[in-house]
Amino acid sequence: MSIPVGSPAGAGGHNRRWVMASRPDPEVRDENFRLESVAMPAPGPGEFLVRTLYLSLAPVMRMYMLDGAGIEKPLEIGETMRGRGVGEVVASNHPGFAVGDIVQGKLGWQEYSVSDGSPYFMMYKVRQRRVPFSTALGVLGMTGFTAYLGLTEIGGIGRGQSVLVSGAAGGVGSNCGFIARNLGCRVVGIAGTDEKCRLLVDRLGYDAAINYRTEPVQQRIGALFPEGIDIFFDNVGGEILDAALAHINRYARVVLCGRISQYLKSETDQYRLRNWWRVGQRRARMQGFFIYDLEAHFAEAEARMAEWIAEGRMAYQEDVLEGIEQMPRALIRLYEGRNVGKQLVRVAAPVTTAEPVPHASGQTLP
Amino acid sequence: MSIPVGSPAGAGGHNRRWVMASRPDPEVRDENFRLESVAMPAPGPGEFLVRTLYLSLAPVMRMYMLDGAGIEKPLEIGETMRGRGVGEVVASNHPGFAVGDIVQGKLGWQEYSVSDGSPYFMMYKVRQRRVPFSTALGVLGMTGFTAYLGLTEIGGIGRGQSVLVSGAAGGVGSNCGFIARNLGCRVVGIAGTDEKCRLLVDRLGYDAAINYRTEPVQQRIGALFPEGIDIFFDNVGGEILDAALAHINRYARVVLCGRISQYLKSETDQYRLRNWWRVGQRRARMQGFFIYDLEAHFAEAEARMAEWIAEGRMAYQEDVLEGIEQMPRALIRLYEGRNVGKQLVRVAAPVTTAEPVPHASGQTLP
Repeated sequence: MSIPVGSPAGAGGHNRRWVMASRPDPEVRDENFRLESVAMPAPGPGEFLVRTLYLSLAPVMRMYMLDGAGIEKPLEIGETMRGRGVGEVVASNHPGFAVGDIVQGKLGWQEYSVSDGSPYFMMYKVRQRRVPFSTALGVLGMTGFTAYLGLTEIGGIGRGQSVLVSGAAGGVGSNCGFIARNLGCRVVGIAGTDEKCRLLVDRLGYDAAINYRTEPVQQRIGALFPEGIDIFFDNVGGEILDAALAHINRYARVVLCGRISQYLKSETDQYRLRNWWRVGQRRARMQGFFIYDLEAHFAEAEARMAEWIAEGRMAYQEDVLEGIEQMPRALIRLYEGRNVGKQLVRVAAPVTTAEPVPHASGQTLP
Repeated sequence: MSIPVGSPAGAGGHNRRWVMASRPDPEVRDENFRLESVAMPAPGPGEFLVRTLYLSLAPVMRMYMLDGAGIEKPLEIGETMRGRGVGEVVASNHPGFAVGDIVQGKLGWQEYSVSDGSPYFMMYKVRQRRVPFSTALGVLGMTGFTAYLGLTEIGGIGRGQSVLVSGAAGGVGSNCGFIARNLGCRVVGIAGTDEKCRLLVDRLGYDAAINYRTEPVQQRIGALFPEGIDIFFDNVGGEILDAALAHINRYARVVLCGRISQYLKSETDQYRLRNWWRVGQRRARMQGFFIYDLEAHFAEAEARMAEWIAEGRMAYQEDVLEGIEQMPRALIRLYEGRNVGKQLVRVAAPVTTAEPVPHASGQTLP
């Protein structure tokens, strides 16, 4: 509590951080966290000091507190909470990072952190200077890159093509509408409520929407795309994938981004796909991918989408709380489903590098 | 009957051709064909005259005689039988084809034919001069190109990879073993009898074989590829595709070449695929293709495989009858399953361009 937001980094200062006080049982509550004030970390040789600007909240964090997730081990009691953020380099002994650089990576729930830039930190530079840096945790971060590069690099999108997106109101899907539209395509989204379907068309760049709970999906795809679809960007899998495969064109690309409909099922209980053979028959391609494999294209994705946002041709949604004190509340909001758009906390303003202001139509909170 | 085999084309000569005398009912019999001798055709402006060297027999020919197939309309009674062959250009008014060129394309069941080189004739030049021209109808024709380009262009094959092939004893599959082996891979084939499995390993370049009728396929794939498969070249589809998908590696390529197990089933009766989701999970790719879309790579495929055959590093199987008189018998042999390897008829020797002799180990008739 001793470092006012906005103060420059200085030797001998303090660093506030959230640690895990206890494990969720089973729900995440305030008492699982404790805010500590410790000595400011100092970068050693080959290291740099990052001042946290924004922190991102994600559902996976509960897993970090319980059993771990993927390569992430379970947190120890008393350990600093793990999480991605955007920060400003305020001191550096690393040749690749200079004071004033804006970075995104694993910063943890704290005001300052030290990194050596090794792969563990997944540290990427934010190069664009047109829209707020918070975007590096959503539309101009891995979520947006997944949408952009899934459509371009994996989907091979081209002007005048027909694009269908499932899970269209989700994190990745909500970016696909404007991307496809701005690349000259007609784009239809599939979502699970009428409200989401309205959002897709009114605010997220989609030309039309299908409510998979109330409409016959396969029939509606056929009606909306009488000449078939060139790209299916799939976040859902299962029955919706089957419905889309029934309408793929010759040389179509099916981008397997996620399969939210199947994650909770056991391997032997997965949906059994009827229309797989159309991939062969239509000379089509069905492909999975991992966003970090496309790292070489991140800068291009960032620059292109920053331009669209700055020009008012692409909107995104964020739900930003103010101050690091809000971190536990922000995470709990997520599990309660109260956030509208990407849940973030603003921790501090940058000291060296001015943050661009939002475009009037850039952020579309309803 | 007036043109001896080997005689040069000359104005005023005769051309023997087989026409359809009656439709099969339902089986193809000798009496469905009639051999006619007509005037030698003469090439007009922009046309060229081809002397037939070999003709190819294919099961689809019965369809031509009944209902047509694909873009091919049903034959009329009295019309020249349709079919692909290899020939030598013996007269030309076409700037793209010169006397002495060896070509493969739709020649029909006749000794001489005229073509304008338009897409209908699917006329490709045979450029290699290392192995007999008959190979242009099999291993160095569309069958072999499908195997080679399916593995290279669609499968992205690389040295040291693990390759699995279904329908491995079939037309396309029987070429995959040597191709994969010569490109530095370990290759396993799946077939339906012990005899075919022995053939795969003893004569067709495969490292191992699986009999899908008598062995538990999925388990055997796992045992033969404990570290997973990088390429699955699938001629079969359905259950065998499912078994292979259970073992694909990260970044694997599944080449959908054919689905012989499913062709006779209705669209609603297709096998329902269990392991489709592994394509996404493994960041893999499943892709169909059409060989004529890869035309730009035919010359490379031909040159590479001709080299292998000439060096004794690749074998192929042909079953060649002598003389155009044998055409109906050759076709009937096919339906009786009496051919061993690609069924061909040798019609004439070339007059201008010497035909290379076979390599000692090039042709592997059992």
